[in-house]
Amino acid sequence: MSLELVDAVAIASAVREGKVSAVEVTKAALQRIAARDNELNCFTTITAETALADAERIDREISQGKNPGCLAGVPFAVKNLFDIAGLTTLAGAKINAENSPATQDATAVARLKQAGAVLVGALNMDEYAYGFVTENFHYGVTHNPHDLKRIAGGSSGGSAAAVAAGLVPLTLGSDTNGSIRVPAALCGVFGLKPTYGRLSRAGVALFSSSLDHVGPFARSVRDIATAFDVVQGEDERDPVCTKRPRVELSDATSRQNIEDLRIGIADDYFTKGASPEAIDAVQKVADALGVTQYVTIPEAHRARAAAFVITACEGANLHFEKLQLRPQDFDPATRDRFLAGALIPSTWYIQAQRFRRWYRDKVREIFQKVDVILAPTTPISAPLISQETMILDGEEILVRPHLGLFTQPLSFIGLPVLSVPIQRPNVLPLGVQLIAAPYNEALILRVASVLEAKGVISAPIVPLKL
Amino acid sequence: MSLELVDAVAIASAVREGKVSAVEVTKAALQRIAARDNELNCFTTITAETALADAERIDREISQGKNPGCLAGVPFAVKNLFDIAGLTTLAGAKINAENSPATQDATAVARLKQAGAVLVGALNMDEYAYGFVTENFHYGVTHNPHDLKRIAGGSSGGSAAAVAAGLVPLTLGSDTNGSIRVPAALCGVFGLKPTYGRLSRAGVALFSSSLDHVGPFARSVRDIATAFDVVQGEDERDPVCTKRPRVELSDATSRQNIEDLRIGIADDYFTKGASPEAIDAVQKVADALGVTQYVTIPEAHRARAAAFVITACEGANLHFEKLQLRPQDFDPATRDRFLAGALIPSTWYIQAQRFRRWYRDKVREIFQKVDVILAPTTPISAPLISQETMILDGEEILVRPHLGLFTQPLSFIGLPVLSVPIQRPNVLPLGVQLIAAPYNEALILRVASVLEAKGVISAPIVPLKL
Repeated sequence: MSLELVDAVAIASAVREGKVSAVEVTKAALQRIAARDNELNCFTTITAETALADAERIDREISQGKNPGCLAGVPFAVKNLFDIAGLTTLAGAKINAENSPATQDATAVARLKQAGAVLVGALNMDEYAYGFVTENFHYGVTHNPHDLKRIAGGSSGGSAAAVAAGLVPLTLGSDTNGSIRVPAALCGVFGLKPTYGRLSRAGVALFSSSLDHVGPFARSVRDIATAFDVVQGEDERDPVCTKRPRVELSDATSRQNIEDLRIGIADDYFTKGASPEAIDAVQKVADALGVTQYVTIPEAHRARAAAFVITACEGANLHFEKLQLRPQDFDPATRDRFLAGALIPSTWYIQAQRFRRWYRDKVREIFQKVDVILAPTTPISAPLISQETMILDGEEILVRPHLGLFTQPLSFIGLPVLSVPIQRPNVLPLGVQLIAAPYNEALILRVASVLEAKGVISAPIVPLKL
Repeated sequence: MSLELVDAVAIASAVREGKVSAVEVTKAALQRIAARDNELNCFTTITAETALADAERIDREISQGKNPGCLAGVPFAVKNLFDIAGLTTLAGAKINAENSPATQDATAVARLKQAGAVLVGALNMDEYAYGFVTENFHYGVTHNPHDLKRIAGGSSGGSAAAVAAGLVPLTLGSDTNGSIRVPAALCGVFGLKPTYGRLSRAGVALFSSSLDHVGPFARSVRDIATAFDVVQGEDERDPVCTKRPRVELSDATSRQNIEDLRIGIADDYFTKGASPEAIDAVQKVADALGVTQYVTIPEAHRARAAAFVITACEGANLHFEKLQLRPQDFDPATRDRFLAGALIPSTWYIQAQRFRRWYRDKVREIFQKVDVILAPTTPISAPLISQETMILDGEEILVRPHLGLFTQPLSFIGLPVLSVPIQRPNVLPLGVQLIAAPYNEALILRVASVLEAKGVISAPIVPLKL
């Protein structure tokens, strides 16, 4: 039976067809978590009781002939900045542990549950989502399932590692400057940062409102598409969530003909500082697609600088009162950057927003000539836990702020990006970003489907055992 | 003949009916300017040659039976931050005098010209529109026509004084925190700050983009409505200018029945600091309308503080390079406030923008219960030139930053406001603000028409002599 359960869609099919019960699937997930999470530290909360109750209800619905939804019985977990009714939303912070429990699920959580998915817990992250490492001062380090001495990446480190380790096939995370894509790459799973505003952020603790996105981690392209489809759609609880019509993306994964697409490799900024293996990963994808064209995204270094400034300023403003009243209760790594952010003069912030409009228009012009752009997700594979520096382009630089080198200039203007996993035997995984114009998620899923069919990118090595 | 020419609409009728030629009207305006502007200092540029050529063209069109437009032959002038093709746009700054001439008229200027109005010059203002006094270090003080020892108000001081002195019947200005309404009140003319984004700002030197509006000054309600109608409508040169359908406002001035309107007097913040005569002016308007209801706009003092912060930050960012390279070339009064603005931390700016959304929603709720709100325009009548302080509510405070006490909380969220003139024999004029919900300019013009018909508010005392 385990052969069939390659991903969430396979699980849901098996559950709906009665080959396995939702309770069996849920119990197996809880057992995997119990067996492995002590050493991985993906979960900050495990909701075993409500998960089993939800699974029983789904099995009952199936026995009554009802349709339990396209994710029936699929265990999932969410970064602990998503509201879960009855639990306190931590957002990785000790201070937040004093808050009252949430009274309502975040919209994204509620919609996955409505589709039959079973929530089994909340996942570790960098405090307030401000980091690329998930070395949380209060809740510990999340370890990379490929090598426990290494980081999972962040800030959605728990979300990526839980999928990579086969604890659950589906998780949700958030991405401001790369917090979905960086850990997806370092853990070797799929991670989608959708178009800004396309998925509801209602019930999600924000970090930097004009940059925050939510999105799924999964083991296959069809799982990513299905999770996206379930969560998408207007939400009156989120004023930013756009009123665009729903476009089913799961269709996109079956339309594997991509000969009509113009694909380019990002050069210039997106090659400087990338390790040879990161360059190789992009080349492997390009070769499989027959892509030889290069594309230059102008002023990407400025885009990253501007994203840095906006994040620091908006984050500092959001936590300003707490920073003044109880700085000692912050994660030191987070606090010091917020304090620095609070001192940035307003003119830097306004200039960064001004540049952003210029840059958005320039990149929009590029997408007149190309449909999908390829770039490395991270400059290197997973660094060691507590590793402070890395060598990029011959220069020794800090790990923490620089893992987002290639992700920041893209989320800055809300482009949809899928990080696809390049697995290599006995070598750490890496990710490649498939980038499109706003609202063109379907295009990057079509490209990813082709790469998946060709075996260039693939699911985590750990199978989903029952 | 001078009896007929009470305002711009009367001039245009007379010109179209052949009772007077556009050239005669234009020459008369140029003569009035030549006679009086030495002592008033409203104009920084007089465009006599092109004005006479334009007037000749209009007369020719009339003789050919063509329709020259609803403002045929009406002399007008604009604050010197509007682009005029062939002239350098000063925006009150010495530094800008080095710029190349504009190649195209600002949209608002072009549309008035298309309607037959004749541009006779550009008008004095505070440097970069940052002030309420029009005491310009480079281009001199604009004097109040009611008392030459007093200021005209600012920053559109030249625009208000030119109408009040009868030099031209129609001018354009801009309003960020009160720069149309304050000088309109102190000079005793009508001044309209429309809904944010409703009139195109293309070709206008901005000050604080999220707060800047353009609007007309005039001698009558119908002139204000006509000028608005001519300028309104989508403009592809201005991305902020809304795509709302055109609504002709000149109709509003004839619908004088206002029994269906719910009108309230702003209390709390809008009475504190107002001089007894400013309170009396509002009461006079309320009595004429039979209004006894009061309305409280919550947190208006915070709204003003937030408007201050946003203005200082956005203004400082806009001029940052020049502030660093050549601070000595700024007006000292402007420079020092910009420098202070450049040092404001980003968290204040972001907090002000965050408060703004809350405040906008609160005020929106108020407009569910009331259609038009009355408030004083300025706390006092025109101060003396160089007067540094004034006594408000028993406290001695600076004149320059505080004349906008009652205007700032309203432009902050883009509400349409008409300042109507209360003329009193042998006493300085004052203004009363008629305030409505966004896009409800028609309502305040209906109320103003009733007040005008009852003689409570009235045109400047100086007639438009030919």
